[in-house]
This record gives sequence, C-alpha cells and structure tokens, in this order.
Amino acid sequence: MGCLIDDLFRAAFTEVQPQDSAVLDLPASRIAMTTDSFVVHPLFFPGGDIGSLAVHGTINDLAMAGAKPLYMSVSFILEEGLEMEMLWRVVQSMRDAAHASGIAIVTGDTKVVERGHGDGLYINTTGIGEIIARQPIAPDRVRSGDTVLLSGDIGRHGMAVMAQREGLRFESAIESDSAPLAGIVREMIEFGVKIHCLRDATRGGVAAVLNEIASASGLQIAIQDGTIPVEDGVRGACEILGLDPLHIANEGRFIAFTAPEDADKALEILRAHNESATIIGTVTTGKAGRVTLQTSIGGTRILDLPAGEILPRIC
Amino acid sequence: MGCLIDDLFRAAFTEVQPQDSAVLDLPASRIAMTTDSFVVHPLFFPGGDIGSLAVHGTINDLAMAGAKPLYMSVSFILEEGLEMEMLWRVVQSMRDAAHASGIAIVTGDTKVVERGHGDGLYINTTGIGEIIARQPIAPDRVRSGDTVLLSGDIGRHGMAVMAQREGLRFESAIESDSAPLAGIVREMIEFGVKIHCLRDATRGGVAAVLNEIASASGLQIAIQDGTIPVEDGVRGACEILGLDPLHIANEGRFIAFTAPEDADKALEILRAHNESATIIGTVTTGKAGRVTLQTSIGGTRILDLPAGEILPRIC
Repeated sequence: MGCLIDDLFRAAFTEVQPQDSAVLDLPASRIAMTTDSFVVHPLFFPGGDIGSLAVHGTINDLAMAGAKPLYMSVSFILEEGLEMEMLWRVVQSMRDAAHASGIAIVTGDTKVVERGHGDGLYINTTGIGEIIARQPIAPDRVRSGDTVLLSGDIGRHGMAVMAQREGLRFESAIESDSAPLAGIVREMIEFGVKIHCLRDATRGGVAAVLNEIASASGLQIAIQDGTIPVEDGVRGACEILGLDPLHIANEGRFIAFTAPEDADKALEILRAHNESATIIGTVTTGKAGRVTLQTSIGGTRILDLPAGEILPRIC
Repeated sequence: MGCLIDDLFRAAFTEVQPQDSAVLDLPASRIAMTTDSFVVHPLFFPGGDIGSLAVHGTINDLAMAGAKPLYMSVSFILEEGLEMEMLWRVVQSMRDAAHASGIAIVTGDTKVVERGHGDGLYINTTGIGEIIARQPIAPDRVRSGDTVLLSGDIGRHGMAVMAQREGLRFESAIESDSAPLAGIVREMIEFGVKIHCLRDATRGGVAAVLNEIASASGLQIAIQDGTIPVEDGVRGACEILGLDPLHIANEGRFIAFTAPEDADKALEILRAHNESATIIGTVTTGKAGRVTLQTSIGGTRILDLPAGEILPRIC
C-alpha cells in the first residue's frame, strides 16, 4: 500500500521534493519547509510523548536540510472524549520542546471528530526554517570516499513505544531517544564541516536511510557492523523479539556523510553531544544502491530494507 | 469544549498569532503561514471534495492576510481500507486546485491508522505566502466609517455538505461555493483599494466573522438585512431546517472592510468575479463588539454568534 500511495502522490504532486524538507526560493532568502502528521500510539511513552515527538520531528527534518528552524504550525485532530488533562500535558510538552529549540509555534488549528473516528489525538506540525548551510546538503552531494557518521546509539524510540504499547517489560526500561538535532547540525555548519548529506534515522531505521542514500547517490555504502552503538537493553529486547536494531526507528539520531578530511572534526562535535557517536563506514564506488555490512567475524552481508513497516504508529 | 481548548492553547502557545495566517518576519521578506486540518464528512459533496476544499482553505487563509500563496504542504492520515480510487480522486483534485491558483505543493507526509481510528481520510494543509499588501490587513485596522462588503451569496458550502451527509433532497441541488480567493484579493491590492481587514466566512458563517471583527476592533457593525445575497435553494433549505444563512459556513466568500472612498472600486472588482457581491453595511462607533441587523421592515436586531457548532465536520 505504501508504494502505491507514493506512486499516486508522485504522479499528482509533481512539485513535491523528495526530501523530508523542501528547499524553497523565497523572493529574498532560502527557506526549508516540512510537514508531518503524528499518530503515535500510545500518546505517552518513556522518554517522550506525541507532543514533544511532533516538535522534535519537525525541527529535525529542517535540520537535516541544513536549516535553522524558525516557525512552525500545529494542527490537532481530537477525538471526542479525549481528556482535557491529557491534551494539556501534550500542549505543555510541545511548548517546552519548542522553547528549548528556539522554534516559534506561530499558527494552529483544531478539529474534533466523533468517538470512534480518531484515537485520542493526532497532531500535524509543519515547520519552516532558514537554510544556513553554505553548500547544498542532499543525497546527490555524496561522493565516493565520504565518511559515514552516526550521532548516537540506535533503536531506542521504536522499542520504547513498542514496549509501552504491548505492555512488554524488559530488565531495564528503554527510553525513547526523541530529541532535537538542529543545535548539533548548526555547530557542524558553523565549524565549517563539509557536510554532504544528513538524514535522521526515523521510520525504517538506519538501514532505510543507508539504502535510500545509496540509491539516490548511485554509490555503495560499506558499514562496519561492530561500530553500530546499541544499548544493552535495546539489544536484548531486539534479540527476544527477533528484530534488527538497524531497522528500528529513532527520533533523535542521524547519519552524516562528510568529506573524509572533515570526519574527525565532525566526530568531535557529535561526541560532545553524545559519546556513543561514531564513524560507521565509508562510501565507495561498486554496486550503486548497495549497502554492505562488514560483520565482526570478517564476513560481508547485504543490509536490506526492513520488510514492510515492522512497527506501525511509532511516530 | 471549544473555549477550553482555545484557552489551553493560548496559555501554552503564547507565540501563536490570533489570525488564521501568522504574519512572519523572515530575514529578508515578509511571509504568511497558515495551517488547517480537514475532516469533512462525507469526502465528496456537490461542488467539491476534501482535497479541493483543503487547497482552497489554505489559499484563502493566506489571501485574507494580504498574501500571495506560494508553497504548501499536504499531510494525509489514511484509515486502513480506504479505497485507492477514492484517494486518487482526492489527490487529483488537490493537484488541480493548486495548479489553478499557482500555489506549489512542495512537501508532504502520509500516516496510516487502523480501521476504526479514522474516517477514511483526514488532510492537513499548511501554506506560506508572500505578503503583497502595502498596509497591514487586520481587525485593528478597521475604522469607524469603513464600508463592509460581501463577495457573493452565502450559505452554500454548509448546506451542500449537510444535505449530502444527511441524504436531504431539496428542489434544486445546492453546490458548495468552495473556491480560491487569492486572485480577487490580489486585484484589490493591485488596484490600490485601501483594504483594512479581510476575513473568509467559514465556520460560524458571516455572523461569526462580523462578531469577531466588531470585538477585535472595538467598534459596532451595522448590517442591512435585505442586502445579504442568499440563493433561493439555500434560503428554502434553511427555512425548512430552522437555520439562519448568516450562521452557515462558506468556503469561497469573504467580508472586506475598506475605506469608504474605496468601496465602489472594491465592489467593481468583486462584481467582476461574482455578480452577487454587494455592500452589506458600515462600521460605526457605538457599542464595541455589537453587530446590528437592520431588518427590511425597519426594525433592528442584534446579530449574535451561532450557538455552538451547528454543523460539525463541514471542513
């Protein structure tokens, strides 16, 4: 169904840009604009809630386009019967998340639907930001030889939401990694890191991002398996459930492709924010669109996309 | 519930501007940004569908801020089981409506929720536009003596959706007035009409707009009842159902407040688009926030807000 819908939209909306954020020419300055609806279930989970998630999601999509988030809109679809206290908590959470990142929520809308035609609360956020990157940041800027960096440990958001939803209890509680990424990106830009591409590893996880960029750039990406940071709790939960952490959604982690000579500088900035940040691989020529995983025992396997959406409604 | 939610949001989102479009300072140019979610039921109705309605709604909110629509985002929340053919029709309708008005749909998102957690399809659209009005267009610019103009006959959208939903059959089918208004507004601006305030008469109809502007400007508005254009079919349907056309939502009609010396010029432009356009009253000092209706037999009554939302889910 996903592909069919994508095809439909692509056929009709020929002006839609294939990035999460569209890069726009305004009469005098370049801005990025992004939109996302949030239908996460449940509304509250360890490490966040639908409100902070929506704000972070919008900020991060702008950041990945090399933009400084400026303004956002918020639109609510409320199901009749939603407790006002719950809505209030979400609204406060949004406000706090927006304040913390310096994005202004400037316009909004609310619709109410009858009981049984929603699920408590759905939120749409749309953001615009000013492009501050001096060079375009996009998949087609990726070059053979580029270094691939990961900004922190992976798999926490998807597993936190899933555990909360299914009532699973693991030895240690897993907290979502939901967080704003614009500050880190801004530092990288200000310190002159030659960033070629940025992508937050949301739906489909790191595997989806790597495959997407490999396809879009027409290059191969070689990842060192032992380098991928995964918290023990997440690793254990994934093993029990037969899931690959590389396929699990994150909401505060991104992949950066930089010129190799700038990789150390980039890593230093990433590590100041998260000590798990690391270099995970390189871009090579070879088979266009292929992502290989160098396993710790010396073998190589192809890192595929997750088959279907393994965890629905995690954002 | 509506008031409570408004209060909640106002308390938390202190940067939200009270207009449908937020007027924003970008580093180099002034833009308007607006958002709306659409939950209209049914998805298709005489004269339009959820897709064209969403595009028109966004264009019109921008136009009412004196902006030229430039870019918009589209986000879909689909209920499992939605027929793809139906989605395709909606998507085409959006594309056509956007093309017709020269607004570019530049970014989007899709989420899918389980059966029973949606109602086929909900759409969020967010738009940004360039402010082209030379003077601010806002309720606080309204002055005593201003002329109040209405851009066409009223009550069609709300009645068309209601008739479709409830299976009501009237003598003549009522078609929604859903239409883009940016072109008309642009002409008024280009011809130098001194526009003080613009507002499209959506939820709550003309009565809600007039009351809102009377309150916000601290002035009284005096309307001549006999001047309000209402199609015979709409009038008949309203009489049968005990509804006041002034309370019914429109999606292609607006109220303009202009300097009195420019009223004739404004009316000429409005009439070129819709021959029902007319002057309906004037702004006066008197009781702040009051809207009076001069009835055709010489009496005067207070025109109140509709009590509650008489037609839910009409947009």
